[in-house]
Amino acid sequence: MDETLFDFRRFSSRKITVRGHLHPIEVGMREVRMQNGGTTVLYDTTGPYSVEGFKPDIAKGLPRLREAWHPAGREFHTQMWYAKQGMITPEMEYVAIRENMGRCENNKITPQIVRDDIAAGRAIIPCNRRHPEAEPMIIGNRYLVKINANIGNSKLGSGIDEEVEKALWSVRWGADTVMDLSTGENIHAIREVILRNTPVPIGTVPLYQALEKAGGKAENLTWELYYQTLVEQCEQGVDYFTIHAGILQKHLPAALGRTTGIVSRGGSVMAKWMKLNNEENFLYTHFDEICQLLARYDVAFSLGDGLRPGSIADANDAAQFGELDVLGELARKAWKYDVQVMIEGPGHVPMDKIAENMTRQVKACDGAPFYTLGPLVTDIGAGYDHVTAAIGGAMIGWLGTSMLCYVTTKEHLSLPNRDDVREGVVTFKIAAHAADLAKGHPGAAELDLQMSRARYDFRWADQFNLSFDPDRARKFHHEMIPNRDADHCSMCGPDFCAMKITKSIG
Amino acid sequence: MDETLFDFRRFSSRKITVRGHLHPIEVGMREVRMQNGGTTVLYDTTGPYSVEGFKPDIAKGLPRLREAWHPAGREFHTQMWYAKQGMITPEMEYVAIRENMGRCENNKITPQIVRDDIAAGRAIIPCNRRHPEAEPMIIGNRYLVKINANIGNSKLGSGIDEEVEKALWSVRWGADTVMDLSTGENIHAIREVILRNTPVPIGTVPLYQALEKAGGKAENLTWELYYQTLVEQCEQGVDYFTIHAGILQKHLPAALGRTTGIVSRGGSVMAKWMKLNNEENFLYTHFDEICQLLARYDVAFSLGDGLRPGSIADANDAAQFGELDVLGELARKAWKYDVQVMIEGPGHVPMDKIAENMTRQVKACDGAPFYTLGPLVTDIGAGYDHVTAAIGGAMIGWLGTSMLCYVTTKEHLSLPNRDDVREGVVTFKIAAHAADLAKGHPGAAELDLQMSRARYDFRWADQFNLSFDPDRARKFHHEMIPNRDADHCSMCGPDFCAMKITKSIG
Repeated sequence: MDETLFDFRRFSSRKITVRGHLHPIEVGMREVRMQNGGTTVLYDTTGPYSVEGFKPDIAKGLPRLREAWHPAGREFHTQMWYAKQGMITPEMEYVAIRENMGRCENNKITPQIVRDDIAAGRAIIPCNRRHPEAEPMIIGNRYLVKINANIGNSKLGSGIDEEVEKALWSVRWGADTVMDLSTGENIHAIREVILRNTPVPIGTVPLYQALEKAGGKAENLTWELYYQTLVEQCEQGVDYFTIHAGILQKHLPAALGRTTGIVSRGGSVMAKWMKLNNEENFLYTHFDEICQLLARYDVAFSLGDGLRPGSIADANDAAQFGELDVLGELARKAWKYDVQVMIEGPGHVPMDKIAENMTRQVKACDGAPFYTLGPLVTDIGAGYDHVTAAIGGAMIGWLGTSMLCYVTTKEHLSLPNRDDVREGVVTFKIAAHAADLAKGHPGAAELDLQMSRARYDFRWADQFNLSFDPDRARKFHHEMIPNRDADHCSMCGPDFCAMKITKSIG
Repeated sequence: MDETLFDFRRFSSRKITVRGHLHPIEVGMREVRMQNGGTTVLYDTTGPYSVEGFKPDIAKGLPRLREAWHPAGREFHTQMWYAKQGMITPEMEYVAIRENMGRCENNKITPQIVRDDIAAGRAIIPCNRRHPEAEPMIIGNRYLVKINANIGNSKLGSGIDEEVEKALWSVRWGADTVMDLSTGENIHAIREVILRNTPVPIGTVPLYQALEKAGGKAENLTWELYYQTLVEQCEQGVDYFTIHAGILQKHLPAALGRTTGIVSRGGSVMAKWMKLNNEENFLYTHFDEICQLLARYDVAFSLGDGLRPGSIADANDAAQFGELDVLGELARKAWKYDVQVMIEGPGHVPMDKIAENMTRQVKACDGAPFYTLGPLVTDIGAGYDHVTAAIGGAMIGWLGTSMLCYVTTKEHLSLPNRDDVREGVVTFKIAAHAADLAKGHPGAAELDLQMSRARYDFRWADQFNLSFDPDRARKFHHEMIPNRDADHCSMCGPDFCAMKITKSIG
C-alpha cells in the first residue's frame, strides 16, 4: 500500500481523543496547531491510521474497536431498539461527542438528543455488529452534513488493490461513509478487505452481487439468490444496504416513457425483472423478511430511488414522486422492526425544483434522513459533474438533506481513479460544509472565522491546515512566490494586497 | 501564439452566421453537427478565430467589425441615448439575434425588448466605440447569464504573451467578457494587444494603472492622474470600467472593524487615500466628470463594490449595504448622462444570505444589472474556490444576477495560469447555464434535452460536442474503454448500464 495515504505530518496536526462520560469510549479528532499559538479541532474520519505510531497491516485489518462495547453473549438489539427503550448506547454517546468537535459549548449535541432522534427515525448510526472496525457516525438533519464516496470496480477495470486504496484514500480526504459498488471481478474479496480496513461505515447495493451470481441476467435472479447475498453481506459486516424496494409495476409505464428512462442500475434491473416475470418487485413483497434480517445485525436501509431522474427533463416527475411515496411506506414498516432507515434522492434536478424534493421527502418519509446523489443542476456538465452536483448538493444540504453522495469529474464518462476520488471527496466536503454554515450548525461558522482570521494575518500554514486539501492549497500558494511567509500572495503581488493596504490604514 | 488556441475542428462544428433584418449585420454562432443527423446551435464567443480559413495576426489585430456600423463624422451617442430616443442600433439587433441562438421561436428576444431594457437601465451592451473588434453582447437579467474571466499580471509574474494568451484562451472556452487586471509591468502594452485581438468586451480597473503612475503610493494619487488614465483607457478602447466611487469616508469605521477589513484592491486604495487626505473619495466627488467622459465613448460603468465582504463573518454587513445604497445613487446619476451601468456584488456570502443581496441590489439600484464575484459560500475552500464560488454564483444567477465573475482554483493563493483559466471559465459557464435553466430561459432547457437524448442514445461524440469542454469529456471517456462507440461506459461496464437495461425492456 502507498505509505503516503495516511501521512498526516504535513498537516501540523495531531490526533486527540475525547473520553465519554457514560461509556468507556474515546473519540478521535484532529487538533491543528495554529501559528498564533491556538488550536482548532477538526472532525476526523481517518480512524487509527492517523494515530501516531500506528502501523497499518492490511492482511490483519484494523483493531475491532466496538467489540469491547458489546460483549458476546448479551442479546443483540439495534440502535433504534435501544433508543426506543430510552437507553443511550456507546455509539450514541460517541457520535454526540464527535459532532461537537470539542468546540460547541452552546447549542451542544447531547447523547439524549441523539437517542431521541434515533428513536424517532430522524437520524441513523449505521453500524453492523459485524463491522466493529468502524467508528460510529450519525446521519440526520440536525447533524453535520455527511458525504459518501462511491468506489468499486466494473467489468472494464480495477482490482482489489486499487479499490482498497480508493477506499482508504477517500477516508483520508474526509469521506464519512464509503459505498463499494463493485460489479466486476472479486466482489466478495474486495469487500472483505475494505470492511476489515476501513474505519467508516460501508454501504453496498447487494443486488449487484446477486446479479453476478445470476450470471448477469435479470431473468435468472430470484428472491432466494438475493436473500442469500443479503445474509452473506450482513455476516461480512456491511453497514447499510441500498435496496430498490420502492419501484413497483405501476410505476413502469411512466418510467419507460421518460427522456432518459431509468438511470439507477438497481432500478433498471428490478424493472426488467418485473417485466420478464410479470410479478411485483420481490424486494417489496419480501420486505418484512428483509427487515427481520437487517434487525439481527443492525444494518441500516438506504431505500434506493430506482426512479431518480437522470435528466433535467425527467426531474420531479410522476415516476420519481410515485416511488418516493412507496419509500415512505417502507420506512414506516422498517421502523416497526427497529431497523434504521435513510432515503435516497436524486439525481438530475434544476435549481428551481430542488426545494420540492426536500419538502416532499420530509412529508412522505416522516423525517427519515435524506441521502442524495447531487442533485446535478444541469445535464451538460460532462467532465465537470462534480461541480454540477456540488451546486445542487450544497443547496439541498442547506434545505435539510443529511448526507450527500459525491459525484466525480468522471460521472457519465468513466470509472474514477484515485485522483478523481480525492477531487470528488474534497469538493463534497466543501458543499456539505457550505450547507452546515447556511443551516447555522453551531460549529460550522467557527471554522470559517478561524480561516478568515488566518487569512487576514497572512498565517499561510494555518490557511492550508484549516482547508480540506492542505496539500493542494500549499502547492498552489508556493508555485509562484519567492517568499512563502510574505504579507501578500502572487495573485496581487506586494503593492496590491487589499488586506495589507487596509491594515496599513490602522 | 499557440496554434491550438482556436482549433475548433475537434468540435464537429462550424461557424454559421445569421443576418439582421434592420441592419447589415451578421451574427456568428456555432452549429454542432449531430450523429443523428440533426444540428444544434450554440452561443459562441470566439469571434473570427473560429471562422474557417481565418489567419490570426496578433500584430495586425482583428477586423474592426463595428467600424462600418458607425461611419466617422456622424455624431456619436451611447446605446442608452439611442434607446431612450426609441432607436434600435445595430448592436441591439445583434444581441437580440445572438441571444435567441437560432432556436427560441417562442418567447423570443426581439430588438425592441433589448432597446427598452437598455433605455430603462435594466441591461447594458458594453461597446466602447474605440473597440470595434468586439462583438456586441448584452448583460441583463432577462438574458443568458454571462461570465467574465479575470486575467492580468502582478509584480510577481507574467508578461505580455502569457496575458494575451490567457485572454484568447478564456474566450476560446466561452468567456463573455475579459477583465485585464494587470498591476505589474507593461500595463498599457498588455492592454493594447488584448484589445486589438479579443472579440469580447474588455473591462479594467483604471485605478490600478493610475496607482502605478503614482509610484504605487496612494498618497501620490490625484484626481488629475486618475482622469488622465481614464482618458488613456477610453481612447484605447476599454469597454467597461470598475470604478470604486461608492466607498465613502462614512463607511470606513465599519469597514476597518471587520474580520477581513477591505478585500477589494480598489476599495482599499481609495480608503487609504481618504484617510491620508482626510477628504471624500475623489471618484465620488468627480463622478459627473467621469460620466461626461464615459458618455463620449460609451464606456459602461461597473460600479465597484469596494466593501464587498471578504469573509462569511462580514457578509451582508452595514459597510457592504451602506456602499450599495451609494452605488444606486450613482447609477441614477450616470443614467442622466446616458451612460450604461452595472453594479458589482460580493464576495463571501453563506447560502442563506445570498437572496438578500439580490433583493437589496434590485431595490437600491432600480434594476441595474448585477455582476457578482461568486459569491463564495464558505471561506475554507482554498484550492477549490472555483467550486465555492460556482455554488453561490449559480444561486445568485438564478435569483437575477446578470453576469458572474469567474473565480479560479488559485483564488486567495496565487495568480492563475492557462489551465486554471480554462477550468474557471468552464466551471462558470456551467454555473451560468444552471442559472439560465432555473430561471426558465427559453433556450436553456433545449441544450439539456439534446444532451440527455444523446446520452440515452449512446451518441458519445454528441455528448462531447454539446458540453462546455468537449476535449476533457472525450479524454475522460476514452481513457478506460476499448470500444469507444459502445452502448455503455467504463463506469458501469457492459452488464450494468441502467439505460441499456431500460431500453432492453422496450
